[in-house]
Amino acid sequence: MKALRYENETLGIDDVPRPVVDGEALVRVTLSGICNTDLEIARGYAGFQGTLGHEFVGVMENGQRVVGEINAGCGHCDLCRSGDARHCANRTVLGIVGRDGAHAEFLTLPIANLLPVPAEISDEQAVFTEPLAAACGILERTSISSDTKVGVIGDGKLGLLCAQVLATTGAPVTLIGKYPNKLQIAERLGIETQEIDKEYPGSRWQLFDVVVEASGSPAGFDLALDLLRPRGVLVLKSTFQGATDIKAARIVVDEISVVGSRCGRFAPALELLKNNKIEVQNLISEEFPLTDGLRAMARAAESGVMKVLLRP
Amino acid sequence: MKALRYENETLGIDDVPRPVVDGEALVRVTLSGICNTDLEIARGYAGFQGTLGHEFVGVMENGQRVVGEINAGCGHCDLCRSGDARHCANRTVLGIVGRDGAHAEFLTLPIANLLPVPAEISDEQAVFTEPLAAACGILERTSISSDTKVGVIGDGKLGLLCAQVLATTGAPVTLIGKYPNKLQIAERLGIETQEIDKEYPGSRWQLFDVVVEASGSPAGFDLALDLLRPRGVLVLKSTFQGATDIKAARIVVDEISVVGSRCGRFAPALELLKNNKIEVQNLISEEFPLTDGLRAMARAAESGVMKVLLRP
Repeated sequence: MKALRYENETLGIDDVPRPVVDGEALVRVTLSGICNTDLEIARGYAGFQGTLGHEFVGVMENGQRVVGEINAGCGHCDLCRSGDARHCANRTVLGIVGRDGAHAEFLTLPIANLLPVPAEISDEQAVFTEPLAAACGILERTSISSDTKVGVIGDGKLGLLCAQVLATTGAPVTLIGKYPNKLQIAERLGIETQEIDKEYPGSRWQLFDVVVEASGSPAGFDLALDLLRPRGVLVLKSTFQGATDIKAARIVVDEISVVGSRCGRFAPALELLKNNKIEVQNLISEEFPLTDGLRAMARAAESGVMKVLLRP
Repeated sequence: MKALRYENETLGIDDVPRPVVDGEALVRVTLSGICNTDLEIARGYAGFQGTLGHEFVGVMENGQRVVGEINAGCGHCDLCRSGDARHCANRTVLGIVGRDGAHAEFLTLPIANLLPVPAEISDEQAVFTEPLAAACGILERTSISSDTKVGVIGDGKLGLLCAQVLATTGAPVTLIGKYPNKLQIAERLGIETQEIDKEYPGSRWQLFDVVVEASGSPAGFDLALDLLRPRGVLVLKSTFQGATDIKAARIVVDEISVVGSRCGRFAPALELLKNNKIEVQNLISEEFPLTDGLRAMARAAESGVMKVLLRP
C-alpha cells in the first residue's frame, strides 16, 4: 500500500506492506488530515520515523465507519487500568510515537481506541474529531462557566476549533488573530474577534480570566500574559519545539496558572459534531490524493493555509 | 534617621527624614530581614529606588508590637474592596514598589496592614512572618492533602520554610537541595531530603504530584519537570528576573500546571509561629547593625548564607 513516510530525514510516498498487528483492528483510511505536528516531524524536530498522520476517518473490515483515539497504552499501568492511556509512560501514539500513522491506505489500532461515527457526521467532518477532541480537552484542564471571560490567541484551525468549543459553554469568547479572513469565520459563528496589533496595546489590559494560546508561536505566550487578569489561567495548546523564553517572574508576580493541554476524549467531540455545534467545513483549505502527499505537506506549511486533507 | 537605600544605581546608608504619611501608622523597626528580592533590587533588576526591605517586626507609637503585610492597595478597586490588595493594579509594595521599606529606623504602613504579634513569638521569629506567609500562600494556589506527594526544590531559607509549611498538611514532603548542612535542618524536623545530583537521575522519575520550585535558579524549573508525574503541579515561588528558557512542549505533552505564587496572608503564618509549628531560629546566619547594612547585604549575597538580619 501507499504511505506518506518520514525516514532517514526524508519525506516520501513509499510502498509498504499492509499492516498486520496481533490484537489490533485493520482500518481502511477514507480521509486523513495534516496537522502542524506532521510538519514538525517532517522537519526532524520530533524524533519520529514512520508513516505520518494521526487525524483520520476510515472503515473497519466489517464496514463500520470509525475514528480512532491516537494514544495506545501498555494496558497494565495504573493509568491504563483506569481507562486513560493518554499519559501511559509506555504509550505509542499514532503517527507520532512508535506507531505508523494515518496518511496511508490502511492503519491498525487497538479495537478499544476506535469509535463508530454517527451517520449524521460526514467524512469531511469526522476527520476533525481528533483536533476537536484536543480543543475539548481544555475543559478537562480548567473550569469555564458562562461568566468566565475567555480569550483564544491564534486564528488557525486549532484556534478556531478551541474558540468554538469554548463558546459552547456559554462563556464570552474572543478570538485574537492576524488574518481578517480567518477571523471572519469566527465572526460568522457569533464569536467576538480582535485583530492583533490593531486595538490591543502592548500595555497590560488584564482583561481575560482564561487565555488559550493556540497560535503555535512563542510570541503568543507573552501576549497571553498581557491579556490575563491577576491569578488568571493561561492554557497552552501549542507544542512549539525547543526552549521558549518565558518571563517566569510575571507568572509569579501575577500568580498566573499556566496549564498544558494536549489530547482530549473523542466522545464529546463526536457529540458536538453530531449535533452540528461546530463548523469545520470552512476550516478545510484543500484536498489532495495521498499520492500527492509531498505537495500536500508543502501546501499545509504555507502561511495562512488551514486544514489540508489527504484521500488515499 | 538612618536607612539602607538604593538610589541612582547606588546602595548606601543614608540620613533621611523620619517618614510621615497621612492616614498611615508610624512603626519603629526592631529587626528587619534581608531577602533575595533586596539583592535583586540592589543589582538594579527591579526598577525600584528608595529604602529597601519588606521583612520586619517593629513597635507602634502606642507600644504595640507589630508585623505588616507589604501590599498597600488603592482601596477603591474590586480587589481592594474584597479585602485583598495583593493584586491591586495600583498597589505600592513595602521596599519593592513605590514605597520606602523596612531597612530603616522607622517606616509607615496603612493601619489595616499591621497585625499584632502574640507574646509567644520572639522578635527573631516574628521577622520571618512575611516569608513564612509567602510559603503559606502556596496552599491558596494548589490543594495539598495528606496523600499528595510533594517535592520542594531549593534548600535556602525559602525552600526550608516552604517544606515546613507543606509538611503541616500531613503530606509527605521531600526537600531537594545542594547543601548537606541545610538539608540537615529539614531532616532534624522530620522532613525527607534528597541531595541533587546524588540519587536523582537525569531521566524522568515522575515521582511527585506537586513540586515547588524555590531554588531561585532557572535550572530548578527543568528539574521540577523531571520530577513531576503527568498532570502534576509545578508551583513557582522564585522570581528570577529576565527571561527563562522553558521547554513549553513538555508542559503541553505532560499536561503540567505551572502555578505562580507570590505573597501570602500573615494571619496563618503568625498562627504557625505562635504554636511553634515552624522552626526559624536555624535559618538565621547573622545579625548586623543597620549602620553596617552594606556589609550585611554583601554577606547575604554569599553562596550558602541564609537569613541575614538588620537591627536599627
